[in-house]
Amino acid sequence: MKDIRIIIVGFGIIGRGVAETLVWKRQFFRSRLGVNVVVSAVCEVSGCLVPPGGVDLEKALSTPLPKIEGWKDAKTKDVIRETEADVVVELTPGNIQSGEPGLSHILGSLAAGKHVVTSNKAPLAVAYRRIMEEAAKKERRVRFEATVGGAIPIMNLMEYCLQANEVSHAYGILNGTTNYILSKMAEDGVSLESALKEAQDLGYAEPDPKYDIEGVDSAAKVVILANALLGKDVSYKDMKVTGIREITPESVELAKKHGYVVKLVGDVVRQDVSPRLVPISHPLNVSGSLNALMLNTDIAGDITLIGRGAGARETSSSILSDILAIASRI
Amino acid sequence: MKDIRIIIVGFGIIGRGVAETLVWKRQFFRSRLGVNVVVSAVCEVSGCLVPPGGVDLEKALSTPLPKIEGWKDAKTKDVIRETEADVVVELTPGNIQSGEPGLSHILGSLAAGKHVVTSNKAPLAVAYRRIMEEAAKKERRVRFEATVGGAIPIMNLMEYCLQANEVSHAYGILNGTTNYILSKMAEDGVSLESALKEAQDLGYAEPDPKYDIEGVDSAAKVVILANALLGKDVSYKDMKVTGIREITPESVELAKKHGYVVKLVGDVVRQDVSPRLVPISHPLNVSGSLNALMLNTDIAGDITLIGRGAGARETSSSILSDILAIASRI
Repeated sequence: MKDIRIIIVGFGIIGRGVAETLVWKRQFFRSRLGVNVVVSAVCEVSGCLVPPGGVDLEKALSTPLPKIEGWKDAKTKDVIRETEADVVVELTPGNIQSGEPGLSHILGSLAAGKHVVTSNKAPLAVAYRRIMEEAAKKERRVRFEATVGGAIPIMNLMEYCLQANEVSHAYGILNGTTNYILSKMAEDGVSLESALKEAQDLGYAEPDPKYDIEGVDSAAKVVILANALLGKDVSYKDMKVTGIREITPESVELAKKHGYVVKLVGDVVRQDVSPRLVPISHPLNVSGSLNALMLNTDIAGDITLIGRGAGARETSSSILSDILAIASRI
Repeated sequence: MKDIRIIIVGFGIIGRGVAETLVWKRQFFRSRLGVNVVVSAVCEVSGCLVPPGGVDLEKALSTPLPKIEGWKDAKTKDVIRETEADVVVELTPGNIQSGEPGLSHILGSLAAGKHVVTSNKAPLAVAYRRIMEEAAKKERRVRFEATVGGAIPIMNLMEYCLQANEVSHAYGILNGTTNYILSKMAEDGVSLESALKEAQDLGYAEPDPKYDIEGVDSAAKVVILANALLGKDVSYKDMKVTGIREITPESVELAKKHGYVVKLVGDVVRQDVSPRLVPISHPLNVSGSLNALMLNTDIAGDITLIGRGAGARETSSSILSDILAIASRI
């Protein structure tokens, strides 16, 4: 059995989701995959948990971190540099303008000779090239499956399953909140405000849903796909972004009459995010909060993937996939 | 750059498709993936091409094989045993009762210490356990992504992208011919015979479409998925199979009126293939000759994949993916 030592940076919904899955699937990882994931440290804004023998995840999930032995009033960047580990798992929320604090965490991890797995879109949407050049220089890997499409494998799919192929186009529905709202509007004929309210009540939408509604979240994902799948060198500022704010029940109804649905589509070639008419029978017409991505490949043809674009447990599937991929090469 | 030496067994539509893709993507494989695929031999029923310096694929694609230097009146099994190679790529059509001739080719390859990549459903539908036990004994791999869903990654998706997950259920549309027929019946209100005739004219259906229409092809794929994804020990004889022969335009029309389509669905848990009513808005409602598979996983939730279930070029994507996966471990 192989040990892989990780530092978890960010212990919010996603970080705790990863920890829960690690506890839940510990035996499966050991017996079926031959991998033992050891958590060397957990970092938060207020300090870091760095117990000498590694983090007891059950305890970390049930007790406030500052009450656990090994809690230090230390800075994340110092713990990243000083703690022995193979992979830094960066799961903080990011600022789409600066990419921080994730960008510094990622660059600091690479500088310290550590691999990186992240669910944080912002650093990659701001500085994809810079991060990848730094990783190449240090011969370390930065993996980011969870940044786009939540549980849906995209980058790993291309690298491990469609590796003979080149992608010429990728487009799809990359934000579950707006898809839930548009689906509700189409199915129940309600207004955007009313559908949004419902999404908020169900926990699909943030109290401040601006990033979703205005297409910012989708656009950051398109930037990542454009760089990762098409080898482009683009960042968030190169995107044309139109959200769903102006979509009325009348326009949704009119589309429906003509056999279409309105979907917020991100497009890697056009480098835009905008509401589009999608034929009802098209594979991208997925309802509820699902995400869907269509890849145009040169050998395999079109491949469409549909799955959960969010959720702590679902997203942990992608994060763990990246960790395991690094483990298989260590 | 790494050389991987393969023997192609079967040079029909699929075998030639793989050869064409190897020629087309040669530079990409070398420069981007660092792999040089060398074809040591090409085997057919009537003899084998085993030139001393390896097979010139361009020539093999443009000239009848018996006219090329290196053609021998040799048996495939002997060439598999005697030719130096890493992987035997078994692409013959198979008999669903006996699994032959592919089963002998696969077992012979393993006995000779060679890895196997195959697109041939029959040997796996007949003797999955036996093949895998033999492979384990010889410490060789048998990979078969192309046997189910054509270009759609399924086995490799689970192994490399959803590796933290366990699958509890898998079901979907695994035969393009019957999906084309059922889609035509729903869209144009035509009879099964008329839709079948059209599928045959377009080359989607064989002159003898029995295997498709009666669900045999789908059932062989369900057997493979049940073994590979759910760890069952089943073979073709354990399947309950109902084809689409009895589906009338009236039943298709009635389904449509109530918001459903009729699809031939293979189900790994029920171990059956049968026509089912699928809600129009369900991700499995894909039209034309597309295939679609839904996987229920424990961490990632439901993942649906849609793509081309057949076609020589499309299928070569899966075959090459398997070859490259083996190359990456040699």
